[in-house]
Amino acid sequence: MYIGFSEAETFLRNCRDAVIITHRNPDGDCVGAGFAVKDILQELGIRSRVVCHDKFPQRYDFITSAGAGDDFEPQSVIAVDIADTQLMGRYEEIYGNKVQLCIDHHISNKNYAEKTLLREHATAACEIIYDLAKYMGVKITKHCATALYTGMATDSGCFRYDCTTPRTHEIVAEMMRTYDIDFYKINREMFEIKTPARVKLESQVVNVMESYLDGKLYIAAVTSEMRENLGIPMEELEGIAPITIQCKGAEVGIFIRERENDYKISFRSADKVNVSAICETLGGGGHAKAAGCSMTGSLDDIKKVLVEAVKRAIQ
Amino acid sequence: MYIGFSEAETFLRNCRDAVIITHRNPDGDCVGAGFAVKDILQELGIRSRVVCHDKFPQRYDFITSAGAGDDFEPQSVIAVDIADTQLMGRYEEIYGNKVQLCIDHHISNKNYAEKTLLREHATAACEIIYDLAKYMGVKITKHCATALYTGMATDSGCFRYDCTTPRTHEIVAEMMRTYDIDFYKINREMFEIKTPARVKLESQVVNVMESYLDGKLYIAAVTSEMRENLGIPMEELEGIAPITIQCKGAEVGIFIRERENDYKISFRSADKVNVSAICETLGGGGHAKAAGCSMTGSLDDIKKVLVEAVKRAIQ
Repeated sequence: MYIGFSEAETFLRNCRDAVIITHRNPDGDCVGAGFAVKDILQELGIRSRVVCHDKFPQRYDFITSAGAGDDFEPQSVIAVDIADTQLMGRYEEIYGNKVQLCIDHHISNKNYAEKTLLREHATAACEIIYDLAKYMGVKITKHCATALYTGMATDSGCFRYDCTTPRTHEIVAEMMRTYDIDFYKINREMFEIKTPARVKLESQVVNVMESYLDGKLYIAAVTSEMRENLGIPMEELEGIAPITIQCKGAEVGIFIRERENDYKISFRSADKVNVSAICETLGGGGHAKAAGCSMTGSLDDIKKVLVEAVKRAIQ
Repeated sequence: MYIGFSEAETFLRNCRDAVIITHRNPDGDCVGAGFAVKDILQELGIRSRVVCHDKFPQRYDFITSAGAGDDFEPQSVIAVDIADTQLMGRYEEIYGNKVQLCIDHHISNKNYAEKTLLREHATAACEIIYDLAKYMGVKITKHCATALYTGMATDSGCFRYDCTTPRTHEIVAEMMRTYDIDFYKINREMFEIKTPARVKLESQVVNVMESYLDGKLYIAAVTSEMRENLGIPMEELEGIAPITIQCKGAEVGIFIRERENDYKISFRSADKVNVSAICETLGGGGHAKAAGCSMTGSLDDIKKVLVEAVKRAIQ
């Protein structure tokens, strides 16, 4: 059932011993949202615990070092920034059909929870949680504001992406005026700092990047051999795909990574081309500007198929 | 003389045939500010012309294609985002001592104009100009809003840097609600798109980057030979320095470029180290987080001196 702020407030004020579920492969928005809800519950005198299938990456230490919460038997189950119970990983089996409140901004939300506070136009789950906290009149601590800022900044690509709302900018302004958020440090941690190995890898990806269709398409492929030579685990390849659309004139970029039995193909669109539609013809899917699929065969054959598919879409 | 909004309004409403000077090596803020003032004067029925020592770079076409204005003998002289007449290039001789109104946000402003509207805490000159236009009640066109957004986004590093004010976020929110600014496209043009040659160059810079002092210092040097092999003009090396502080653990980054008779050395600080103080000991200067100097001698000797200087500063 979809609910509004009033019902969400009633739920939060009356819940107890809550578990707050964040999605696997955690990003700034689910980490920020999870810990912000924990902070809000703490202000209400309610204890809670934030859980995630994966370990929270070290770069979110400034949020997670406050502690994810004690180990208790939960009475209330909350999910944040999770469109589908599949994204809960091992927590799906335990809590997938027991979520009482879900706070989310994905239009693809499967409405799996008892009550869902969905704002599909919000930049981030953190934007919704800020407005909910203000609606409830509950105190926002500096730690909570820092977590909320992180979610809004990361999901909007530092306020760059289409999805950025005016409300996000208003909230950031309000939070900057009220709390001494160290946004420079947060943004540096989120958008600038990389491990030396990642920096070398990105440089390698650029070295192997090839242009097609008069510079409208760029393809970069990382083979298992290349990855192993650099000593880079598979997870480190996350977030590399945007490199393929940084060149002037690029309309589509494709990042290929070799896996054990196939190739994972990530598409990015600079602006107009709907890469989700291309991926659907290849058995994949996604969003208009970011989509993907998987393919088997030789790398050369795969590239030929991809170039043809993009050529048709651009024409 | 420093003035407030009221006097700036009086000046703008009563000026005629105005020339609007922007600084050499034009950036998003001076281009945005120059064309925004032109738009405002146009709303008041006053003709004006935006001038710059250098050609406006192509990436600002979406602002400058509106036209810099007719060629007439100016009666009024306005400078935007210019702290010192030296930054006017060849326009210094013509207008340096005739500026009637200067709108600026640099604390280092030399107070060279008859009247100076200085807001040293503003993120960008464009932030001041938005507030001035609202104060005056003059209509802000979509083109004007686009120019103002560009200045605020670029001078704040897409709202990342310390200097970003809450007011900037408020203005962006107001402008997003009122005008259909294509901020995704602007930000992509300003922060993502690079020429293929630049992308290759950045990758090369990473390849030659060396770490010192247990990864607290990174130094990258581009020799004339390297630059010529890549077919890259000197100007293309602008804005490369931040690459040297992207590695986790980096406190200071140094980017060296060989010039005809010496080496230009650019320092960046990730956070705490005051690189301006280091540069002063080497005959240069700048800001705490971005400073520079020039040195002669062999590259190896220069590196030794730099490593020692940074070592002393970090200790």
